[in-house]
Amino acid sequence: MELWTTEQHKDMALGFRTTKTLYHAQSPYQAVDIVETTRYGRLLLLDGAVMTTDKDEFVYHEMISHVPMLAHPNPKRVLVIGGGDGGTVRELVKHPSVEQVVLCEIDGLVVDSCKEFFPQIAAELNHPKVEVIIGDGVAYMANDAKGFDLIIIDSTDPIGPGEGLFTEEFYRNTYNALNEDGMMVAQTESPFVCQDLIRTIYPMYERIFPIVRMYTGHIPTYPSGFWTWAFCSRKYDYPLPEAHLDRVREIEKTCKYYNAELHAASFVLPNFVKDLLKQPISIQ
Amino acid sequence: MELWTTEQHKDMALGFRTTKTLYHAQSPYQAVDIVETTRYGRLLLLDGAVMTTDKDEFVYHEMISHVPMLAHPNPKRVLVIGGGDGGTVRELVKHPSVEQVVLCEIDGLVVDSCKEFFPQIAAELNHPKVEVIIGDGVAYMANDAKGFDLIIIDSTDPIGPGEGLFTEEFYRNTYNALNEDGMMVAQTESPFVCQDLIRTIYPMYERIFPIVRMYTGHIPTYPSGFWTWAFCSRKYDYPLPEAHLDRVREIEKTCKYYNAELHAASFVLPNFVKDLLKQPISIQ
Repeated sequence: MELWTTEQHKDMALGFRTTKTLYHAQSPYQAVDIVETTRYGRLLLLDGAVMTTDKDEFVYHEMISHVPMLAHPNPKRVLVIGGGDGGTVRELVKHPSVEQVVLCEIDGLVVDSCKEFFPQIAAELNHPKVEVIIGDGVAYMANDAKGFDLIIIDSTDPIGPGEGLFTEEFYRNTYNALNEDGMMVAQTESPFVCQDLIRTIYPMYERIFPIVRMYTGHIPTYPSGFWTWAFCSRKYDYPLPEAHLDRVREIEKTCKYYNAELHAASFVLPNFVKDLLKQPISIQ
Repeated sequence: MELWTTEQHKDMALGFRTTKTLYHAQSPYQAVDIVETTRYGRLLLLDGAVMTTDKDEFVYHEMISHVPMLAHPNPKRVLVIGGGDGGTVRELVKHPSVEQVVLCEIDGLVVDSCKEFFPQIAAELNHPKVEVIIGDGVAYMANDAKGFDLIIIDSTDPIGPGEGLFTEEFYRNTYNALNEDGMMVAQTESPFVCQDLIRTIYPMYERIFPIVRMYTGHIPTYPSGFWTWAFCSRKYDYPLPEAHLDRVREIEKTCKYYNAELHAASFVLPNFVKDLLKQPISIQ
């Protein structure tokens, strides 16, 4: 018998040879599954969609955190919405400037299961600078969030519990929760697969933030392998000022993907992606 | 009933929803299959491995051709080994400097079936500057090839008919078939999937060519989506001299992926890939 874990979409499927199922539970929000694969080690699925794996998680977590952290001259307070596996938090606390990281994850089961099955990803969830809130990120952003230098939207796909994280109201509240030189980064799916989402959400960001950029990376366990993040900023643009290079060199020593040259190169877009950003879809 | 076309490896699988099978034949070298998929249009498989699709072929063909063509100041004679679908040739003849393109493909069935089922990829195979040789690229390189400004190794994977295209003798003959300022580009698989190949073949290139670089791109229908090419040169390095920018701007207008900024950015490597290149495997 062969065991495979397959993320199947309408017209594509990505399969992973699997040796065993380690965990299955249904939370109030989603199905949480953890399996052991032969190529990528342990793999976390939420509602059947691959979230992270032992072997490639470094790409996503380094890119979603170090790019904005090193574009900002002195990030002290950081908010992560989602990200219950802890990988983003683990990267954030590497930065000496950080005084507080607040993680607001809707699903406590994700946090608990990742602490058990992905100890190296969840490694810093108990760090003294980290506050974990199990709660609704949309409500937290509307009511409680303020004074952040960086807000990271480390969400699932825009269906299911992550849906509220793709609305204009949410991003207006995000803008207001930032200090006046603050910035926001969000994962924005694949330009091969989610073209309509990209054509909708980037114009939305542009209605709110004065500086909006897209950057990219390679994630082999996500659909198409080509992933994007939005960099939205109130003041600072993405290029690294010379003054940040010492900080960058310290961080990149700890990284398996990110480095100073890649920081800039990841913002260079293929023509078809630039064209997507020039063909906005407006949804009223 | 659901029809899927799946490229299955030891521990991963990539599936494409399929509406029909258009072509199947067994040549003396390999099984040739063409199917119609819902996401990527028509898809060509050789021995069950995805070679190209209507919808994403532009990435591979633009990157394997325009990067070296625009790094060279005046490429006139170009040789393509493999590449029987014609996509690389189609990009090469866009360059006004080109006087002759020789395509040496071992399998005439690939050329014929692509002319029939991928007319927009095979579009320039009858171009007056193009000579198509149906023959063994290894023998052609050893015995007949000389005086080329650029040689492109547009091969299948290093098993089956492409195997001879991954040996040191073949690349020594390639070096000798180049003019003294010539360059060679070869596809070198995925750094997530084929790490041992990369750790073997780049040191081999470095034993032969004074300038060896890796560059990368996103190909959603290849394993992991993260693809690499070797840029091996006798004289010129990859950065675009200012003097080439007019040529680049003309070519990039015709491209869906390649542009001048991406030319440079595609040579910037993530840390784990740089580490692979620092951990050579030598095979005697």
